[in-house]
Amino acid sequence: MCGIIGVIGERNATPILVEGLKRLEYRGYDSAGIAVGHQGAVHIARAMGKLVNLEESLKASPKTGYVGIGHTRWATHGPPTEQNAHPHRSGSVAVVHNGIIENYQELRAALQQDGFTFQSETDTEVIPHLIQQALTAQPDDPVAAVRAAIKQLHGAFALGILIQGREDMLICARRGSPLLIGLGEGENFIASDATPLAPYTRRMLYLLDDDMAVLTKDGVTVTDLDGNPVERVIKQSQVSADVTEKWPYRHYMQKEIYEQPTVVGETLKNLIHAADRTISVSQTAVGLDLAAVQAVTIVACGTSYHAGMVAKYWIEQQARVPVNVDVASEYRYRNTPMAAGSLMIVISQSGETADTLAALRHAKAQGQQVLGVVNVPESTIDREADATLYTLAGPEIGVASTKAFTTQLTVLACLALALAKARGQLSPEDERRHVEDLLQIPARIEQVLTHDDKLQEVGRQLMHASGFLFLGRGAQFPIALEGALKLKEISYIHAEGYAAGEMKHGPIALIDEELPVVVVAPKDGLHEKTISNVEEVKARGGRVVMIHTAGESTGVAADFEVGIAPCGEFAAPILYVTPLQLLAYHIAVHKGTDVDQPRNLAKSVTVE
Amino acid sequence: MCGIIGVIGERNATPILVEGLKRLEYRGYDSAGIAVGHQGAVHIARAMGKLVNLEESLKASPKTGYVGIGHTRWATHGPPTEQNAHPHRSGSVAVVHNGIIENYQELRAALQQDGFTFQSETDTEVIPHLIQQALTAQPDDPVAAVRAAIKQLHGAFALGILIQGREDMLICARRGSPLLIGLGEGENFIASDATPLAPYTRRMLYLLDDDMAVLTKDGVTVTDLDGNPVERVIKQSQVSADVTEKWPYRHYMQKEIYEQPTVVGETLKNLIHAADRTISVSQTAVGLDLAAVQAVTIVACGTSYHAGMVAKYWIEQQARVPVNVDVASEYRYRNTPMAAGSLMIVISQSGETADTLAALRHAKAQGQQVLGVVNVPESTIDREADATLYTLAGPEIGVASTKAFTTQLTVLACLALALAKARGQLSPEDERRHVEDLLQIPARIEQVLTHDDKLQEVGRQLMHASGFLFLGRGAQFPIALEGALKLKEISYIHAEGYAAGEMKHGPIALIDEELPVVVVAPKDGLHEKTISNVEEVKARGGRVVMIHTAGESTGVAADFEVGIAPCGEFAAPILYVTPLQLLAYHIAVHKGTDVDQPRNLAKSVTVE
Repeated sequence: MCGIIGVIGERNATPILVEGLKRLEYRGYDSAGIAVGHQGAVHIARAMGKLVNLEESLKASPKTGYVGIGHTRWATHGPPTEQNAHPHRSGSVAVVHNGIIENYQELRAALQQDGFTFQSETDTEVIPHLIQQALTAQPDDPVAAVRAAIKQLHGAFALGILIQGREDMLICARRGSPLLIGLGEGENFIASDATPLAPYTRRMLYLLDDDMAVLTKDGVTVTDLDGNPVERVIKQSQVSADVTEKWPYRHYMQKEIYEQPTVVGETLKNLIHAADRTISVSQTAVGLDLAAVQAVTIVACGTSYHAGMVAKYWIEQQARVPVNVDVASEYRYRNTPMAAGSLMIVISQSGETADTLAALRHAKAQGQQVLGVVNVPESTIDREADATLYTLAGPEIGVASTKAFTTQLTVLACLALALAKARGQLSPEDERRHVEDLLQIPARIEQVLTHDDKLQEVGRQLMHASGFLFLGRGAQFPIALEGALKLKEISYIHAEGYAAGEMKHGPIALIDEELPVVVVAPKDGLHEKTISNVEEVKARGGRVVMIHTAGESTGVAADFEVGIAPCGEFAAPILYVTPLQLLAYHIAVHKGTDVDQPRNLAKSVTVE
Repeated sequence: MCGIIGVIGERNATPILVEGLKRLEYRGYDSAGIAVGHQGAVHIARAMGKLVNLEESLKASPKTGYVGIGHTRWATHGPPTEQNAHPHRSGSVAVVHNGIIENYQELRAALQQDGFTFQSETDTEVIPHLIQQALTAQPDDPVAAVRAAIKQLHGAFALGILIQGREDMLICARRGSPLLIGLGEGENFIASDATPLAPYTRRMLYLLDDDMAVLTKDGVTVTDLDGNPVERVIKQSQVSADVTEKWPYRHYMQKEIYEQPTVVGETLKNLIHAADRTISVSQTAVGLDLAAVQAVTIVACGTSYHAGMVAKYWIEQQARVPVNVDVASEYRYRNTPMAAGSLMIVISQSGETADTLAALRHAKAQGQQVLGVVNVPESTIDREADATLYTLAGPEIGVASTKAFTTQLTVLACLALALAKARGQLSPEDERRHVEDLLQIPARIEQVLTHDDKLQEVGRQLMHASGFLFLGRGAQFPIALEGALKLKEISYIHAEGYAAGEMKHGPIALIDEELPVVVVAPKDGLHEKTISNVEEVKARGGRVVMIHTAGESTGVAADFEVGIAPCGEFAAPILYVTPLQLLAYHIAVHKGTDVDQPRNLAKSVTVE
């Protein structure tokens, strides 16, 4: 979280920084700021809240400079005030930072003893002070001063640094948090990802951990923290300059829900041979011996974790391999024993999720094979995994993930079948049947979208509830979790997902006339069991929303029913999440929350 | 859930039934009822709500009979009205039932076509009608009529049946739900468990699935569903007749929280050699080759599931064996592939939890070794597991589990060390150190109990919150889940536990000035990471309750702090749950809920 941009060149940096921040705003939007340098002066502008406030401030008081850094913030330490907004300054040093400095309390105490005064509550502010302190000792070598400061930092950082009086250089460094350099004509850039640089250049240089770089308008020097030059490859970015438009939809999230039939279809094309109804993944995942896999570990965060949970059901049932699914922030610190012959799958839309990346690195260090499932090619996880399967969801702008989730499920369903096939567990008949089911999913999602008005009405009637339960069994249990997460993220309603059979071991105490219970209950082998649980809810006065198979009796007097066109049981989870996404969307719209940029959240979680 | 009792003998059955129901009330208390038979008449009394209402009704209108059945209900189908209370009657047949009839809708439709009228919304009522229908066809053979009826039932049941005009017999049957027969002198009994029979007899005959029995005052005949006699062993029950008293405490839950130092100490005694600071479990778990274990699967529900999640951290770290933990209601239907050389651990306070028992049977059918961790000797899980380790918590009366949980953790900690030792992964130094830490836990819990007043005050200040988050990392993450479950169960506040590092992937959207966040953050290897997450909460105005190591800086400006005496990191989860139990308890007392019998819940979940 937090987005960084920087530029040095021959034209005014301010509009480039502001345009870049717009494209980085998905990473955080608690506050924003820029610093530009010109003729021995550094000018800073900062504003609380979204970028539009910074734009207003710059209109009122324009800033000009040929070198500059910009930042859009997702608050970690200290509330989102202007005081805590970046850039932070100490003497002649201005800094933007993405990451968390873990030893900032000790550093802060020492700097205060040395006479430095702190203006903010952030962890970041120790950095400009440390650089200024080093610069006072060696005023002629700003790069050495930055090096000396960085060596004192523990934790994660991507830094953009401007030194007053040295407007001929832009300094940057990274450890843990993403940062890349864009190489232009007579101008060079830094940024948290490639998107904001698309209008200017496609030539990207990716920094590695503990790299530092000095940019001038004509060149870039990359060194390690001791100042020794290092070589980094230059890659051609595939990110297109087209700005994503949400028209004719009201919100990006709505647009992305409606894109699902298309992007699930696109993703499928890469994974199956449609003509002969077979899986083609084994060729795609080049270099991984799927037949030899004895156990699978899946690691992810948030919505991607829910996709991993569905995959556990699929892989265990189809490929008969035990699967362990783990939250990345837990997995990376647990020092889990690795089973022999096991494959790790990491799932991340952005391919930059900090905890997931750390889990990948931990597993690779133990000699594990790692397969990435990511939406952003060239992302760190894509580059570091042994193999990658791509979700072809296209850019996802809404902070609450929708199409990334359904395309992740699509990839994982095909991977489960590929594993089953490689291990000799999948009959040609079952392969054909499951592939046919998958091929029908895009059209089935379109049918679900025709219930939009109905779900809008259900949302209107339930919008005032202070809490929700979502229930499901089997592979629909993680779908219930994901439905609850969507509602929580964008409507701020305390929604929780539960395995339907687990409800009576505690959460049933919450049930009264006020608590809506959303039940995902297709007509499958577990239907009757789920209905027994719904009876327990009804017996206590709860209001029930049934998401069930159209044309089949629900078996219970639900308060609201949404019938979903019949589909194969294997592929059903991909289908059943869509009504839950729409329900969450409409409740949030009814409540008037900021659907695409809900409070406190950020799209790409690059801090731990 | 639901408790059944029945008696046939030479004295008035009513007071025996009522006394028995009191001891079964932990199984459900939505409504209660009895039926007694005398001289060709069956008298029924039923009342909504707790047992005291039935007692009032019986005072106003006493019933006498030498044969009788009684029932205390935990509603599954139909709200807890008098209409839906058991016994249910059709013609000359009265029935009490624990379980769920899955095909009741089809049976009900057919019976209605045949002219039967239904008085209730329950699944149970089909049973007396089916028996009456069969009895009309063969009025001279009530036992054959019951057999014919039972053969039409799908699902789970324990049944007590009274036939008007046949006051010389009491018929019972079971499938899935627990039922035992107590053998007295000139009187015989049926009951859901041995506790209500303790004053009358210790000789118990445990029925197996699809057993039917006919009791007279002088004898018992057990047959299969075709009427062929079967032999069942008679066992001596160890349940004592002492009625558990809560005095001098206000609630059983409070008493049980305060018993934890004692019962954890008692449980430990069985598992370690205190004198030489070593683990003695390997001898206890007779018959299991711990050294050969290559993988572990843990299956449980509710609070026991959280104990299993802590055990995953312990076993993976200490014994270096991969562990999969699963909710029983999910595990049993997933058809999980069994890893070679794997051990299954099932955890259940009552030893009767229906889903956990089904998981045990599934695993045994696949040839897995199963180790039970139960609190009730002679319970079904105890009897069916290959080996059992006992929690010596004593009877737990409060529906929200407390001392059962900490004693489960105690057993599982010792088991993790035993596994590690058997596999050569535990150095004598580490064994000694961990055992010493465990030995200190009872005294440390006593120290935690001295914070009772403080937690009462924290509870007073936070009681009006509509939701809570509980955060932890590592083995304290399941402790956060358990803290949230306690609050949910007894205060009906929507509390949710999260891995601290996962908060920013969604739930952080809930955080505002209204939402208290309880953080379990002892000074351990993950402390700094957790504090970074707490900073994110504080930056958004959340109210933070820190449960941390006494004498160490919390590293953050918390709104409330509770310092816990330092203890070894390994044993810490056993200690850190106690302040969360007390917090939940005091919030519930402040709110005036029924702490020991919270709404909708039952102690022993013997339906799916």
